[in-house]
Amino acid sequence: MSERRSVNVGLCGLGTVGQGVWKHLQRSQAELSARLGLPVVVRRAAVRSLKKARAIKFPASRLTTDPLSIATDPDIDIVCELMGGIDAARDVTRAALKRGKIVISANKALISAHGAEIFALARQHGGHFFFEASVAGGIPIIKALREGLVANRFPRIYGILNGTCNYILTEMASAGAPYAGVLAEAKRLGYAEADESLDVQGWDTAHKAAVLAWLAHGIWVRPDQMIVEGIDRITPADLSNAATLGYGVKLLAIITRDFSTNELSVRVHPTLLPRRNVIANVGGVFNAIAVTGDVVGTTLYIGRGAGQDATASAVISDIADAVALIRYGKGAHLTSETAPPPRQGCHIAPPERIRSRYYLRLTVKDRPGVLARVAAVMARHQVSIASVLQHPADRPGAAALVLTTHESDERSIRRALAVLARLSSVLERPLLLRIGDFGD
Amino acid sequence: MSERRSVNVGLCGLGTVGQGVWKHLQRSQAELSARLGLPVVVRRAAVRSLKKARAIKFPASRLTTDPLSIATDPDIDIVCELMGGIDAARDVTRAALKRGKIVISANKALISAHGAEIFALARQHGGHFFFEASVAGGIPIIKALREGLVANRFPRIYGILNGTCNYILTEMASAGAPYAGVLAEAKRLGYAEADESLDVQGWDTAHKAAVLAWLAHGIWVRPDQMIVEGIDRITPADLSNAATLGYGVKLLAIITRDFSTNELSVRVHPTLLPRRNVIANVGGVFNAIAVTGDVVGTTLYIGRGAGQDATASAVISDIADAVALIRYGKGAHLTSETAPPPRQGCHIAPPERIRSRYYLRLTVKDRPGVLARVAAVMARHQVSIASVLQHPADRPGAAALVLTTHESDERSIRRALAVLARLSSVLERPLLLRIGDFGD
Repeated sequence: MSERRSVNVGLCGLGTVGQGVWKHLQRSQAELSARLGLPVVVRRAAVRSLKKARAIKFPASRLTTDPLSIATDPDIDIVCELMGGIDAARDVTRAALKRGKIVISANKALISAHGAEIFALARQHGGHFFFEASVAGGIPIIKALREGLVANRFPRIYGILNGTCNYILTEMASAGAPYAGVLAEAKRLGYAEADESLDVQGWDTAHKAAVLAWLAHGIWVRPDQMIVEGIDRITPADLSNAATLGYGVKLLAIITRDFSTNELSVRVHPTLLPRRNVIANVGGVFNAIAVTGDVVGTTLYIGRGAGQDATASAVISDIADAVALIRYGKGAHLTSETAPPPRQGCHIAPPERIRSRYYLRLTVKDRPGVLARVAAVMARHQVSIASVLQHPADRPGAAALVLTTHESDERSIRRALAVLARLSSVLERPLLLRIGDFGD
Repeated sequence: MSERRSVNVGLCGLGTVGQGVWKHLQRSQAELSARLGLPVVVRRAAVRSLKKARAIKFPASRLTTDPLSIATDPDIDIVCELMGGIDAARDVTRAALKRGKIVISANKALISAHGAEIFALARQHGGHFFFEASVAGGIPIIKALREGLVANRFPRIYGILNGTCNYILTEMASAGAPYAGVLAEAKRLGYAEADESLDVQGWDTAHKAAVLAWLAHGIWVRPDQMIVEGIDRITPADLSNAATLGYGVKLLAIITRDFSTNELSVRVHPTLLPRRNVIANVGGVFNAIAVTGDVVGTTLYIGRGAGQDATASAVISDIADAVALIRYGKGAHLTSETAPPPRQGCHIAPPERIRSRYYLRLTVKDRPGVLARVAAVMARHQVSIASVLQHPADRPGAAALVLTTHESDERSIRRALAVLARLSSVLERPLLLRIGDFGD
């Protein structure tokens, strides 16, 4: 046990999250010191502009515009990489890990893109990389998966990992408002970024799914190996159709592993969840994750997935774990990346192997014979129709034809969809959603 | 770092939980060894009878009828106390801790009664006491509170901590079946003990609430310092009245702390929860806990609260943490009882300070003037009535009068209740339930 007087933290990035970490570390200083046995001192912070006004009073003398100088500072034990983005964040992370430091990150995009490199670097140089804040904000899901549920293998993990999308879907469903208007409102409220594409097209969720898949299965899945579909083509009518059928619509990450074939599947798409499923009722900016372990059964975690305070809570829990590591010797902790779960020949399933029930919305010419033609195409591709709804579409002379199917597979439904899209009576690209039958 | 070849576990108790731990340790041996860096070996187990047939094949040569011989065996590092009960469990725990061993326990009754002694003993002798399985079974709530949410203070924690009661309430509500019949069925299914009193009268929940209160606030609250009320006087009619009013009824533990007065309140009672509250919709043997942290906001945890596998999952997670401790030096972990949260002058609030809205069921003579008399009593005690339901009672010539109140306090409502109980027109002891307004 080293005889040090404090544990020194450097904050790379003093935006929303960085300011939250600083604020709550200041506020809980006495309690945290008592708990951890050593004071946690924020020695320096790196910012983009020294002149920018900030809501917190961070001592000007401890600010720098050079995050690398923090990553390489021998006086700093823990580097919190809270800058976001990939390239500069990666440089900071690499530099700190190469010096055996502990890096704490909320950066799912970075981890998803360079996780393998980051963890190898940490192992090689005796550094550590903690990332509780990267998935589901304030919910301690990383710790739960890695430590609390260590006795389990995970046939299924699924959930809402993007608060922006969940806010938009919740508002669209409750107010019947169209996507564009709700998105604009979300931007105004600060729930959506100026460039919303990462969120609404599902990529942010895919990055987080990659982190969870690695934690649970020890294998890195790239977003281009997943089905990734966003929420930007969903209309209030889809949400009300789903409600009529007894479902809520959520953008889900779904990670399944078949332990008999050892196939892993990771996908991100809007999903119809039966109303009796708790996750179907999680609204607003909240995240929710259902983890099925082969020993424990299904446990469920719900909380704020983003925001200054929730994210700071997660970063500070990593800091606390890091202090324990520093005090009692590197490697003393299960969260250490030196212990990824064994891969055991696990491999990625081809997406077309996925089986599901489907929701299909077609905008068709409102005239006789169209339903018969659509049904014939479905039948030819062995996709069995379970229910049909029809209502007037937004455009004159058109109808919205909503089908749900019995269980089928991606290959069959996509082939059917391709044929349907070419029918002269089908006026727009069909919308395909999946129905989530998770039996909880 | 010691150069040991394995970590040796002794199981005191080979009943449902002990067998589950053995089974899942055997099954996941290779994975766990890879993850923890050392094999976990179950060296011995103590049973009450050597002759009893068991579902698992535990080597007979490693069985003993003397649990203390395991607690004192120098070859055993981790003692899992899975016997239940208090006295013998306490002897085993004390003996093991005095030898600096790590004790893992699922025994909330023991912890609630002797937690202060146990943790003092562990500190004194360099032992450790882990207890993830003692509250909410497979849900890693201890780890979440202690590590994942370490940045937080906890103004409110509440939830369903007893699966037996939740099963009974769920069945009564869905089938309209009376308490006694559902209880008998629960016993038949193994969801309730032969002696159900610990569960249905709320004491098991109170023990778990005491553990959570200590974790969150560093103070031991005895059940006799709490309001503890059970579910055994609730009728199907109460559940249907509650449903009519928009509520579900759950037996909750509620732990609140007012950080301005530093008053802590811990109570256990059936509670009417608005249907929109996720916890109101958690049915069957599931547990659910809502934790409000001052940084993270409210996070919610749902899962199986009992049963062989869920409990084994929690015990094995403690074993994994214990292995990390053993490998890298005692005290290396935040879960260590050497770091309870600071008490900070926190003290227990007198129960009559609690404010709530109330649900009151009176069985009254079905004749004119009764409601006026009841209302007058309520008014005299400054309890304001919010709604009235009346329907025929189970007995002839009687009516059930169901009142809900606006917010009041325990002192006023209890005084009103005492007067009501003495009215000649009130035929049975009134039933008082509380309404949970948790704003989530």
